[in-house]
Amino acid sequence: MELVVYLAGQIHDDWRDQVANKAREKNLSLSFVAPQTNHDRSDAIGEDILGEQPNNLYRDDTASSVNNFRTQVLMQKADVVIALFGESYRQWNTAMDASAAISLNKPTIIIRPESLIHPLKELSNKANVTVETIDQAIDVLEYVFD
Amino acid sequence: MELVVYLAGQIHDDWRDQVANKAREKNLSLSFVAPQTNHDRSDAIGEDILGEQPNNLYRDDTASSVNNFRTQVLMQKADVVIALFGESYRQWNTAMDASAAISLNKPTIIIRPESLIHPLKELSNKANVTVETIDQAIDVLEYVFD
Amino acid sequence: MELVVYLAGQIHDDWRDQVANKAREKNLSLSFVAPQTNHDRSDAIGEDILGEQPNNLYRDDTASSVNNFRTQVLMQKADVVIALFGESYRQWNTAMDASAAISLNKPTIIIRPESLIHPLKELSNKANVTVETIDQAIDVLEYVFD
Amino acid sequence: MELVVYLAGQIHDDWRDQVANKAREKNLSLSFVAPQTNHDRSDAIGEDILGEQPNNLYRDDTASSVNNFRTQVLMQKADVVIALFGESYRQWNTAMDASAAISLNKPTIIIRPESLIHPLKELSNKANVTVETIDQAIDVLEYVFD
Amino acid sequence: MELVVYLAGQIHDDWRDQVANKAREKNLSLSFVAPQTNHDRSDAIGEDILGEQPNNLYRDDTASSVNNFRTQVLMQKADVVIALFGESYRQWNTAMDASAAISLNKPTIIIRPESLIHPLKELSNKANVTVETIDQAIDVLEYVFD
Amino acid sequence: MELVVYLAGQIHDDWRDQVANKAREKNLSLSFVAPQTNHDRSDAIGEDILGEQPNNLYRDDTASSVNNFRTQVLMQKADVVIALFGESYRQWNTAMDASAAISLNKPTIIIRPESLIHPLKELSNKANVTVETIDQAIDVLEYVFD
Amino acid sequence: MELVVYLAGQIHDDWRDQVANKAREKNLSLSFVAPQTNHDRSDAIGEDILGEQPNNLYRDDTASSVNNFRTQVLMQKADVVIALFGESYRQWNTAMDASAAISLNKPTIIIRPESLIHPLKELSNKANVTVETIDQAIDVLEYVFD
Amino acid sequence: MELVVYLAGQIHDDWRDQVANKAREKNLSLSFVAPQTNHDRSDAIGEDILGEQPNNLYRDDTASSVNNFRTQVLMQKADVVIALFGESYRQWNTAMDASAAISLNKPTIIIRPESLIHPLKELSNKANVTVETIDQAIDVLEYVFD
Repeated sequence: MELVVYLAGQIHDDWRDQVANKAREKNLSLSFVAPQTNHDRSDAIGEDILGEQPNNLYRDDTASSVNNFRTQVLMQKADVVIALFGESYRQWNTAMDASAAISLNKPTIIIRPESLIHPLKELSNKANVTVETIDQAIDVLEYVFD
Repeated sequence: MELVVYLAGQIHDDWRDQVANKAREKNLSLSFVAPQTNHDRSDAIGEDILGEQPNNLYRDDTASSVNNFRTQVLMQKADVVIALFGESYRQWNTAMDASAAISLNKPTIIIRPESLIHPLKELSNKANVTVETIDQAIDVLEYVFD
Repeated sequence: MELVVYLAGQIHDDWRDQVANKAREKNLSLSFVAPQTNHDRSDAIGEDILGEQPNNLYRDDTASSVNNFRTQVLMQKADVVIALFGESYRQWNTAMDASAAISLNKPTIIIRPESLIHPLKELSNKANVTVETIDQAIDVLEYVFD
Repeated sequence: MELVVYLAGQIHDDWRDQVANKAREKNLSLSFVAPQTNHDRSDAIGEDILGEQPNNLYRDDTASSVNNFRTQVLMQKADVVIALFGESYRQWNTAMDASAAISLNKPTIIIRPESLIHPLKELSNKANVTVETIDQAIDVLEYVFD
Repeated sequence: MELVVYLAGQIHDDWRDQVANKAREKNLSLSFVAPQTNHDRSDAIGEDILGEQPNNLYRDDTASSVNNFRTQVLMQKADVVIALFGESYRQWNTAMDASAAISLNKPTIIIRPESLIHPLKELSNKANVTVETIDQAIDVLEYVFD
Repeated sequence: MELVVYLAGQIHDDWRDQVANKAREKNLSLSFVAPQTNHDRSDAIGEDILGEQPNNLYRDDTASSVNNFRTQVLMQKADVVIALFGESYRQWNTAMDASAAISLNKPTIIIRPESLIHPLKELSNKANVTVETIDQAIDVLEYVFD
Repeated sequence: MELVVYLAGQIHDDWRDQVANKAREKNLSLSFVAPQTNHDRSDAIGEDILGEQPNNLYRDDTASSVNNFRTQVLMQKADVVIALFGESYRQWNTAMDASAAISLNKPTIIIRPESLIHPLKELSNKANVTVETIDQAIDVLEYVFD
Repeated sequence: MELVVYLAGQIHDDWRDQVANKAREKNLSLSFVAPQTNHDRSDAIGEDILGEQPNNLYRDDTASSVNNFRTQVLMQKADVVIALFGESYRQWNTAMDASAAISLNKPTIIIRPESLIHPLKELSNKANVTVETIDQAIDVLEYVFD
């Protein structure tokens, strides 16, 4: 049995590679899907496909339509969702993805630093499990195969 | 026909009263439900009911369990959801509520200032309508009765 | 028992008034909801609320977002959907509304002239009943109370 | 990961071959399903199977029952739906298929020429992404694998 | 609390009146909805509304489309379904209605004589309760208010 | 693409073998699942597993519980349902299975002789396609791959 | 806004009266529904309606079919479910009702003594809120109106 | 066709190995998933991953969050659920899992000794089949392939 894991969250660092590497080291039967992690590509994808937009609102909206399309396709393929929150960004789309996953009954793990306990308390309460580190999230996934 | 409107979002100012007042001035057949807007009460409700918790994590988690219970009860009663984002807070629970509402096919309006176009672009794209002011949100609701 | 009927379809003539008058003459316990039937108002509602848009695409898209919001709110209140097609317009939004209604298990009646049998054959086949006149649609509704 | 794409829309030209060819050129892991594209076969399938019908209404209705059966089977297999609208036909069944797909949470792309912005505005607003060319639709699909 | 009860089953005798009378005698807060019980009216309703059909197949199919419309509207209003089977008719539509009700999670009671235990065994096994008499079905409903 | 077809209906003759043979002759990518077709085995399965039951009612009910379990498992695996009605039996369980399939949005074909048009008219109206012969049902399936 | 509360759990003491009294004292707009609380009546209801059964298994099964019918009707009417566990009984049906409620997205409160923390830990984790006393459960409900 | 079977129930003996062995002896095409069966591991998993908790309540709650995550992942993969109840434990989580499975339309078999007929009567009534021994449960599964 292989599980597909959607990795929601910030696209500003290499945390998804860390997840994949640790899963590989433990020989877990996992494959990963994720949003576009090239930040410039993600922001420009609307205009890249549909051409220059008249203002920033529509530049952002067309980009979001393509990114949301991608997310919907890949999340529907996923058995599990991990959503990581860091300290630096608002990441409302991460909260949106995690909440959509929970509403669709996708088993969901939140990763967030201790400093974000308070602002993420409602989402943590709705998710299946909330952890602080990538290693802990991998431990939860490993336990499914245990 | 009366519509029940759930007002998700920040609880630090009186924006819900403004919504209700403007709806009353226009004689719209609307009733409003909302999260607990007394911020201290909201944060303390877990310990108020269940007693002192061993640390902040569990103080927050018990509070969230009661607040999420309230939200689930009231949002299931709602025909429409309005989610307001301001510039000052992370409001991940607002994004969570809006995303849950959209996932449940509740018609949803986002109110956010122009400065938040970029960080809210994915959620705006999924919501039915995104506006910048309370008056505009009321205009959308008024149009349903037009 | 009162039934709420959503009247989808063209907004260029007074067919909805005819439906309502005939229902009243027969004392049927029906109430009606519908899209905005003032055509100019419907096309302008996006800019009326959100301000001038940079081009026709976005003028139309903002108007549609408000009109789709209205449709979603009112169709969720409806027990029955009637969708009328006439010969003069493309009315893809009528086909969209009828198909959404059928997908949501709303009992659905199509009204279309004989001349549209062929282009509407797939939708007619999916709807519960297809008739040619408003009187026949009223007969179907009357039969529910018979 | 392979994605199955349902190609809804007109069956009067070879646009589906273009989609498939472009996907092959880009080595995208896509397979395509579609309605019957032989127009005469599609219109005659009811009588081909069930024998001559008493009039055109029932000739069309029996054909539609078989075509709708096919569409339902194949769309349930699809991960993504692309609906193409051209300028020449009413294509209400395309609008019906697109709306059914959206109601079933199938990620959906609309392709339509600039001239159809206005009549398709409500459907475009509900779909995930609307583009003007087949190349742009392929770009959206390619982005999912990016 | 009032419960709406859909009474599926044969329309050749007055069993629905018996149910209603017994409920009234016991002052149960029940209201009843049902298919058209005038058998000739039920069989003719398609042609009554849509005009003469070319053959019996289409006479029956148009009648069924209107009767199924009625059933869908009323069953969606119902809190409970009672399906009565007698010895004289095939009543496949009764089995269809009961199975649809069970699939929609409507609490369902089957009434059937002892002689029909064997042919109805699968449906009885899926229904909530199977009884042999109208009085027993009323007893089950009365117990809800007990 | 292979389709799984559930063959509901009478278990007193070899019609399922005919379906499978014809599908094989046409090289259709179909596999078939079905209820237990050994009639004695089907009726006795409850007592075979659970031991002698105190009377015929419970003999039948335990058999049905196992047969309904089997049907639920296999129908959930099916992409398409074919339900065949013959002239000799009441086959309420066939009507039950077909109606459950339709309620679960399984594309459904009814096979019934001309003599059963009237008693099966409501179910035929709800199914996707109704045909009179096994060959016609195979033609419908073949058309999906056409 | 009135909320309907289903009170699942043991029927051996008067805890439901306590809940109702406390709600009344606080003027909460709540109405309550519940299983049959007369224990003998609950156990005998199958035979009371259907006559003497051949053994205890079937005596219990017929009683359960009527009790489950009642529960399904009333829980579908409920906005909120409270499930109380005491120390004396196995109460698997209470766990069944609570789990069904949670699966149906009914906001759910568990009441259990401290001594049952361990055996109820999985159910508590899935419920919205777990408390130890009836007063605490009332506090949670009161907070919804706060 | 292979079926995935989730084995819910007590983790204090080797009953799952017996199930797997008997299935293997009969060459049934079954694979099995299950909760963590190492009891100490199951109880400690919360603290093993998240670190020492401030009290037993939270030790249990964190363990449950990980165990419920595992159950949700694996049960969503399952075609069939078997829930075994023994005489020694309260096993409310087994009742919870069985009820969740039934609510999700997973075909479900209960195994329980004769001594538990009465306390499990409501759950038995809702499950598809209730048997007393592992051999009987295997017989039910074997019958699906028969």
